[in-house]
Amino acid sequence: MTLTHFDEHGRAQMVDVGHKDDTQREAVARGRITMKPETLALIKEGGIKKGDVLAVAQVAGIMAAKRTHELVPMCHPLLLSHISLTFDMDPAERPAGLAAIDISATVRNTGKTGVEMEALTAVSVAGLTIYDMCKAVDRAMRIDAIRLVRKRGGKHGNITLE
Amino acid sequence: MTLTHFDEHGRAQMVDVGHKDDTQREAVARGRITMKPETLALIKEGGIKKGDVLAVAQVAGIMAAKRTHELVPMCHPLLLSHISLTFDMDPAERPAGLAAIDISATVRNTGKTGVEMEALTAVSVAGLTIYDMCKAVDRAMRIDAIRLVRKRGGKHGNITLE
Amino acid sequence: MTLTHFDEHGRAQMVDVGHKDDTQREAVARGRITMKPETLALIKEGGIKKGDVLAVAQVAGIMAAKRTHELVPMCHPLLLSHISLTFDMDPAERPAGLAAIDISATVRNTGKTGVEMEALTAVSVAGLTIYDMCKAVDRAMRIDAIRLVRKRGGKHGNITLE
Amino acid sequence: MTLTHFDEHGRAQMVDVGHKDDTQREAVARGRITMKPETLALIKEGGIKKGDVLAVAQVAGIMAAKRTHELVPMCHPLLLSHISLTFDMDPAERPAGLAAIDISATVRNTGKTGVEMEALTAVSVAGLTIYDMCKAVDRAMRIDAIRLVRKRGGKHGNITLE
Amino acid sequence: MTLTHFDEHGRAQMVDVGHKDDTQREAVARGRITMKPETLALIKEGGIKKGDVLAVAQVAGIMAAKRTHELVPMCHPLLLSHISLTFDMDPAERPAGLAAIDISATVRNTGKTGVEMEALTAVSVAGLTIYDMCKAVDRAMRIDAIRLVRKRGGKHGNITLE
Amino acid sequence: MTLTHFDEHGRAQMVDVGHKDDTQREAVARGRITMKPETLALIKEGGIKKGDVLAVAQVAGIMAAKRTHELVPMCHPLLLSHISLTFDMDPAERPAGLAAIDISATVRNTGKTGVEMEALTAVSVAGLTIYDMCKAVDRAMRIDAIRLVRKRGGKHGNITLE
Repeated sequence: MTLTHFDEHGRAQMVDVGHKDDTQREAVARGRITMKPETLALIKEGGIKKGDVLAVAQVAGIMAAKRTHELVPMCHPLLLSHISLTFDMDPAERPAGLAAIDISATVRNTGKTGVEMEALTAVSVAGLTIYDMCKAVDRAMRIDAIRLVRKRGGKHGNITLE
Repeated sequence: MTLTHFDEHGRAQMVDVGHKDDTQREAVARGRITMKPETLALIKEGGIKKGDVLAVAQVAGIMAAKRTHELVPMCHPLLLSHISLTFDMDPAERPAGLAAIDISATVRNTGKTGVEMEALTAVSVAGLTIYDMCKAVDRAMRIDAIRLVRKRGGKHGNITLE
Repeated sequence: MTLTHFDEHGRAQMVDVGHKDDTQREAVARGRITMKPETLALIKEGGIKKGDVLAVAQVAGIMAAKRTHELVPMCHPLLLSHISLTFDMDPAERPAGLAAIDISATVRNTGKTGVEMEALTAVSVAGLTIYDMCKAVDRAMRIDAIRLVRKRGGKHGNITLE
Repeated sequence: MTLTHFDEHGRAQMVDVGHKDDTQREAVARGRITMKPETLALIKEGGIKKGDVLAVAQVAGIMAAKRTHELVPMCHPLLLSHISLTFDMDPAERPAGLAAIDISATVRNTGKTGVEMEALTAVSVAGLTIYDMCKAVDRAMRIDAIRLVRKRGGKHGNITLE
Repeated sequence: MTLTHFDEHGRAQMVDVGHKDDTQREAVARGRITMKPETLALIKEGGIKKGDVLAVAQVAGIMAAKRTHELVPMCHPLLLSHISLTFDMDPAERPAGLAAIDISATVRNTGKTGVEMEALTAVSVAGLTIYDMCKAVDRAMRIDAIRLVRKRGGKHGNITLE
Repeated sequence: MTLTHFDEHGRAQMVDVGHKDDTQREAVARGRITMKPETLALIKEGGIKKGDVLAVAQVAGIMAAKRTHELVPMCHPLLLSHISLTFDMDPAERPAGLAAIDISATVRNTGKTGVEMEALTAVSVAGLTIYDMCKAVDRAMRIDAIRLVRKRGGKHGNITLE
């Protein structure tokens, strides 16, 4: 078992995927931002009267997914064919006394390598954007559980992690 | 209590900081990536024989901090004067049966607004880079507990969150 | 009267502003996108039921303003302290049989040169984003009248163009 | 008739084009910048003696077309195979007492979606660059009539709008 | 013999490659940075005790290759499938009294045009990064002999330049 | 003598310049691209009849200087106040049988750290752009002697290297 991102000299490389087939691929990633219940209440109000934190977070997540290969050094540039994010403002099983927003991102492409990093990046930057827009009222927000939940296509076929 | 990122029409804006003083500011953020013990063992070996996952993650985190305002829509462009990251490969209190790397980022600037988002972005992208470089051997890695731990300078002075 | 963006060899340069004072500056730019009345009706509905074209355009305009110096070759990098956009969906004096959205952007900074180009870029990219999101239903939309309407600060003081 | 850039929750998404065929596509966009006759005279002189505003605008337009998907949030990344711009410094039918430069951009690709936004972005940024380079002598320049004039390829075949 | 990057009006364009076949392509570029022997000694030590200049240069070269089309105006965006760099810290035939590091970059893609510029950009930015990290101790470093050494694939087949 | 870009753990960092004074700084860098005499002849003709390779290279160099901190990992973001490039198409002392263009870049800022890397990056990318635009007729071009020739301002005052 080896880390393929390193060459025989032990130096990092962008691994060669030139021999792989172009297949349709999909990845779904999730994460969560926890906050005070009052902060979530402000976000929910905002959706109606004062603006829409989640609309901004969604645009940020979509735009960040397209720039994943500029941020994560060994990621290949890819022609993403679809990016979407959803938010769940009332998830089950949240820490006592706290509110939370669950963030989910789905990314698809047709190419030689998968889009896991793009989905994870979309979730991360959507979470950072929510933090940024609410930090004046709640500095103790926390981003947790950023993980891959499903991938389809490619050599290993369909994989579900939770 | 209101979300300052919205104008009186309820639309998002980059809030005006023009009236604020230029002060020296610092923010420290942390996060964690959990993984199988075998994955951490490979990373540690790599540091000696095969390459250095954390060296790549560190460069990625530093470069991402400089691009925070391109990723997080309402962030101001800032003249960062210092960025550093440290990694702790043997943190206490980790989930049973799992290994973890704790990531810490310190960012400083002299300016009209703080660098919390830059520190949080550095941690997030360092974590994503570790995930990317190890995902071929461990798809179930998880990024957790991305949070601000300290800030200095600015109107509110020094704040320690943990 | 000469074009200052060229050196004595007739080649383009980014002109020297190093000797200028840091002053507070503001620029306001405007533009308009015209469309079929049915297209505007869809945008308005969307604001309530189906999504919010203008929320996306606003984020796009704000993010583009921050990248003006990457797009317009001779623009200086600047520390923008404020960016906001407003949209008027029922402007007076529009072409017969057509609907229009007027876009206005306000940008401020403290620095050695003004923010006219940033305000004009915000308006342009907000207009392009509206076009993009509605083009499936109305390919004949048109972006017009992108212009500077006011600037404050700097050597020439306050200037109002309309 | 619906706006396809929104999902069933009313949130913006980058629509899925994964099922579409790769076809050769072309888009032609146009726009105009109006100015004082003296400003145009300076630009024309510059082409011979002092530099070349349009050479800079052309490079800016080409480079901006390649970054369209970074600027317009719901645009797909595309492998552009051709970008060119032309300028007409003596267009017919211009406003009384004013000079104008007409800007035309042609973009081609082979892919799953068209290049209208890339052509429109090239025209917009070329116009902004002309504004920037001449604004010291003419702040009242105006960018008008940015529009799609022709597209070829894709599901709808060839379309000419003017 | 003509320069294909110009159209019939003598203006720069991104030449049309839409009619070309997608083939597997590779380019290898090289360059050298010369320095004082003491500077090289510090870099070598650093690899063990103090950090790793070449690890940072390698990441920088890989990331720069992916952004070649944003830097070199007439370059096409490409889906790079592989990027690697190697460094030789003891090259033969170096200038008397000086040490040198030879930098080599290999880039591959499958596409309509080659990756020479991407390999040359990777070498250039790796060299600039070494300069940056050592400039506090040796301002007289020099980057030399950036050149293409081999290309494969495309209309002209395999070409070796040295 | 140590490399300041590494922290006490031996990991790369963006060094802290927060304590430094803002001073006016300037850096001048140079480099050379050698080519076949026929290639230079084509470039010179182009300036009159067919387009202007050096105009494109100049824009590319100026734009690249502004993005130095995105390319060179440990570089600080800076507010550049001036960037210019000049080209000498008939330098003395060139290799037998070859033509050459000498590239010179001058960059200025007011800030806490110097602009050497920005000037070196401008020269490098201008050279790469000339290579790109002429590579169809001369693949054996070579970029040489990229070096700092002068810096002013900052702690060390004025330094001339050649």
